[in-house]
Amino acid sequence: MYKVDLNSDLGESFGAYKIGLDEEVIAHVSSANIACGYHAGDPLVMDKTVANAKAAGVAVGAHPGYPDLMGFGRRNMVCSPKEAKAYVKYQLGALMAFAKTYDLRLQHCKPHGALYNMAGKDMDLALAIAEAIAEVDKDVILLGLANSKMIEAGRQVGLRVASEVFADRAYQADGSLVPRKLPGAVIHDADEAIARTVRMVKEGKVTAITGEEVPLDAHSICVHGDNPSAVEFVKRIRATLEAEGVTIAPISEIV
Amino acid sequence: MYKVDLNSDLGESFGAYKIGLDEEVIAHVSSANIACGYHAGDPLVMDKTVANAKAAGVAVGAHPGYPDLMGFGRRNMVCSPKEAKAYVKYQLGALMAFAKTYDLRLQHCKPHGALYNMAGKDMDLALAIAEAIAEVDKDVILLGLANSKMIEAGRQVGLRVASEVFADRAYQADGSLVPRKLPGAVIHDADEAIARTVRMVKEGKVTAITGEEVPLDAHSICVHGDNPSAVEFVKRIRATLEAEGVTIAPISEIV
Amino acid sequence: MYKVDLNSDLGESFGAYKIGLDEEVIAHVSSANIACGYHAGDPLVMDKTVANAKAAGVAVGAHPGYPDLMGFGRRNMVCSPKEAKAYVKYQLGALMAFAKTYDLRLQHCKPHGALYNMAGKDMDLALAIAEAIAEVDKDVILLGLANSKMIEAGRQVGLRVASEVFADRAYQADGSLVPRKLPGAVIHDADEAIARTVRMVKEGKVTAITGEEVPLDAHSICVHGDNPSAVEFVKRIRATLEAEGVTIAPISEIV
Amino acid sequence: MYKVDLNSDLGESFGAYKIGLDEEVIAHVSSANIACGYHAGDPLVMDKTVANAKAAGVAVGAHPGYPDLMGFGRRNMVCSPKEAKAYVKYQLGALMAFAKTYDLRLQHCKPHGALYNMAGKDMDLALAIAEAIAEVDKDVILLGLANSKMIEAGRQVGLRVASEVFADRAYQADGSLVPRKLPGAVIHDADEAIARTVRMVKEGKVTAITGEEVPLDAHSICVHGDNPSAVEFVKRIRATLEAEGVTIAPISEIV
Repeated sequence: MYKVDLNSDLGESFGAYKIGLDEEVIAHVSSANIACGYHAGDPLVMDKTVANAKAAGVAVGAHPGYPDLMGFGRRNMVCSPKEAKAYVKYQLGALMAFAKTYDLRLQHCKPHGALYNMAGKDMDLALAIAEAIAEVDKDVILLGLANSKMIEAGRQVGLRVASEVFADRAYQADGSLVPRKLPGAVIHDADEAIARTVRMVKEGKVTAITGEEVPLDAHSICVHGDNPSAVEFVKRIRATLEAEGVTIAPISEIV
Repeated sequence: MYKVDLNSDLGESFGAYKIGLDEEVIAHVSSANIACGYHAGDPLVMDKTVANAKAAGVAVGAHPGYPDLMGFGRRNMVCSPKEAKAYVKYQLGALMAFAKTYDLRLQHCKPHGALYNMAGKDMDLALAIAEAIAEVDKDVILLGLANSKMIEAGRQVGLRVASEVFADRAYQADGSLVPRKLPGAVIHDADEAIARTVRMVKEGKVTAITGEEVPLDAHSICVHGDNPSAVEFVKRIRATLEAEGVTIAPISEIV
Repeated sequence: MYKVDLNSDLGESFGAYKIGLDEEVIAHVSSANIACGYHAGDPLVMDKTVANAKAAGVAVGAHPGYPDLMGFGRRNMVCSPKEAKAYVKYQLGALMAFAKTYDLRLQHCKPHGALYNMAGKDMDLALAIAEAIAEVDKDVILLGLANSKMIEAGRQVGLRVASEVFADRAYQADGSLVPRKLPGAVIHDADEAIARTVRMVKEGKVTAITGEEVPLDAHSICVHGDNPSAVEFVKRIRATLEAEGVTIAPISEIV
Repeated sequence: MYKVDLNSDLGESFGAYKIGLDEEVIAHVSSANIACGYHAGDPLVMDKTVANAKAAGVAVGAHPGYPDLMGFGRRNMVCSPKEAKAYVKYQLGALMAFAKTYDLRLQHCKPHGALYNMAGKDMDLALAIAEAIAEVDKDVILLGLANSKMIEAGRQVGLRVASEVFADRAYQADGSLVPRKLPGAVIHDADEAIARTVRMVKEGKVTAITGEEVPLDAHSICVHGDNPSAVEFVKRIRATLEAEGVTIAPISEIV
């Protein structure tokens, strides 16, 4: 039986600023990555997002980022591994307080934006993140890019790890994503994106932009709730996966 | 047998900014109130401060404040109880992550600065803080001003509470502190301050500025490590208390 | 000939966060109050908003607030007059840099949110703001609530001042606004709000909630661009004023 | 006649946090680089630092940095040139407000920390900074590392530029600094450092770590006030320069 998780970044609003169609997308995913106040989110938003996730039966995870609200955590910052480790711990703990309020435990931790991208390629940074999680709660699953340094680092420190794939991104022969600045990096055709995803989940393979067959684990698919068409895409990919016999389940039931 | 706790605010440095003689004062206190990144402190400082407290055998507690780094949390902010509750949870959780790293549990939570002062007089705010603690970890002791709304609120939500007294401050007949702007608010003579403290601890009484005998619980004495003479005062008050037969112990052994 | 200014708070977006229908409302107002990065706005948003105001022929002014992005500057903070003065200078100067980029000068300064409300009643705070403006640029007009301490303070330090009125708010017999928590504070009927505004502009009078005729200067009317119906209201109030023979002009042409 | 400027980073305190011996070092320098609230400094500190500089007869300049208070602006951040340009304008303008208060104009602008280092090697970033200055005030001098992209960019946009040299750093044959992580990067012997500086000022030459004679402009020497021995070094280097016939003067009198 095939199983896959659908994860989405939620709780990215801040103060008077609203971002994302959280209420609409949460009904269709199985795991929520909740911002922790560094690149997005604030304590009231975190509280509400955890409550909504519980009500929707969606597993909660931390989505720590760089301390860069003005850049939404999307800008590379050269922090030392020691700094990154402390930042991840801080954000993990902060979210845990809200999880405890609702009698929940954190299922997973998925770094955000620039932290995710940098840690995917930098073993020291990836280890810092993995160690942060392990030292705070060994049961939290590290959700990282399939075939990346994060998956390797999580295994090395003894964490459960889950591999994330992207429906709308092209892959290189080595299993990494084609950088966004290169032609063909993003797959704009929704049918093609969904078909590729079904294949990643059922066969564990994706065709690289250069034609090779690339093996990869597809434990979780990243989906978005930024706008109405993104939410429509989530509904479609979920319906198609289910029609193909794939069960949508939180990553704790998959890895 | 008499017992009292000596508590001090620690971990108030931030980034490149150092404040407080943490390393010197920590050897002489029994409980550390650790800043949590809102009015002071950052993740690296929190990590180091928890480590130092563990090494010194000092109990760790959270010291949450208003989100006002520029004002060091000393400026009154009119937050709703719901906001204050979420801010306290966030900061409590963040510190818990570092406590877990060192296999410690938080002993207590003492609000900082303006949050402490406002919550001492405002029952809605005091209840928000007490509920935040209770919903995150019922075993954490609320450390608040003796005879204040915080103590009342902590009892009301079922928390263990500890009453804090000040060696160098004058009291009013109703058990509240003489406001700093009034004459006689601060007791500048160290001998007198220490003698008053010994009496508060051993007799549970203090003489009000207007002459009345005021009953009050003295579970914990607030001491400072801002400068060398403050550290000297801590050593003296500790030595005098011990010479008077008072044992210095963390508040978890007192309340 | 009757003249009045229509002012609106613009440039309140921050980083990835968008707020306000700036592009739509700017076409209908004569003065823009631009957030300066403390309670809202960031350098990129400030640059773009000044550029848009210039293109629309709208006068630019600073909209300084408390350093409270999480609370959008709407929460009272007890800063000293010295702190408030320095914060206003900082924000004024920051916006001036972008005005210079587009060969513009700041027309006015209107404090935001809690700073506006507190300074309307607190002469020390109002003087701090007025002095900040005068010390940075004596030609900048202080835009404050009609009949408030801000108008008095502006006059006292020798600034040009402009009195702001609210179309949808009830007034008390002393010329102050009926506090929002009291019944009848907000006038929900758009026709009534517009009719009252026309009378304020043409006759310099408003009927208090208790029936008295209250004299007040109506140099500028505060309008909003938060949502499509707010923008519709701006179009309607502008059309009605013009139909009544009132010219819409920036405050520099009025006071 | 030989002339050189001595510049120092001042006004880096923030809120309750004090850093640097500003009052002691200011008496011995000719130009002050004043932090502008992004990586260090706050409005009260900026006001006081400008006042102190005026009292000491020291020229004031802006010292803009990345928005990274927690990292003191020392961590590389990948901002777009457009973002960097807006950040520099914002900070320049903010400081100008305080300069106007004291009837001063900004003499120069020297980027701080990571922004200084990155802009020294990245022409797009250097141009963004130079354009920001030129668009806000064409008379402000860009102070940058001798032989770096910043000097080139400043010239390209038509700014006056001043070249900064370091007394205690080794140079490479191409005129760049030996990176701190390499052996020999820092010259620990004060006599040697001072002798090298005198030669840079009087002969316009420095001996590279690999033995070559490297020509460089030495308009301004960077000195520090972090601790008492740094202040001692400033006094010594100034006294030696003067004894060698070099006049200490602000950069506006040099370039």
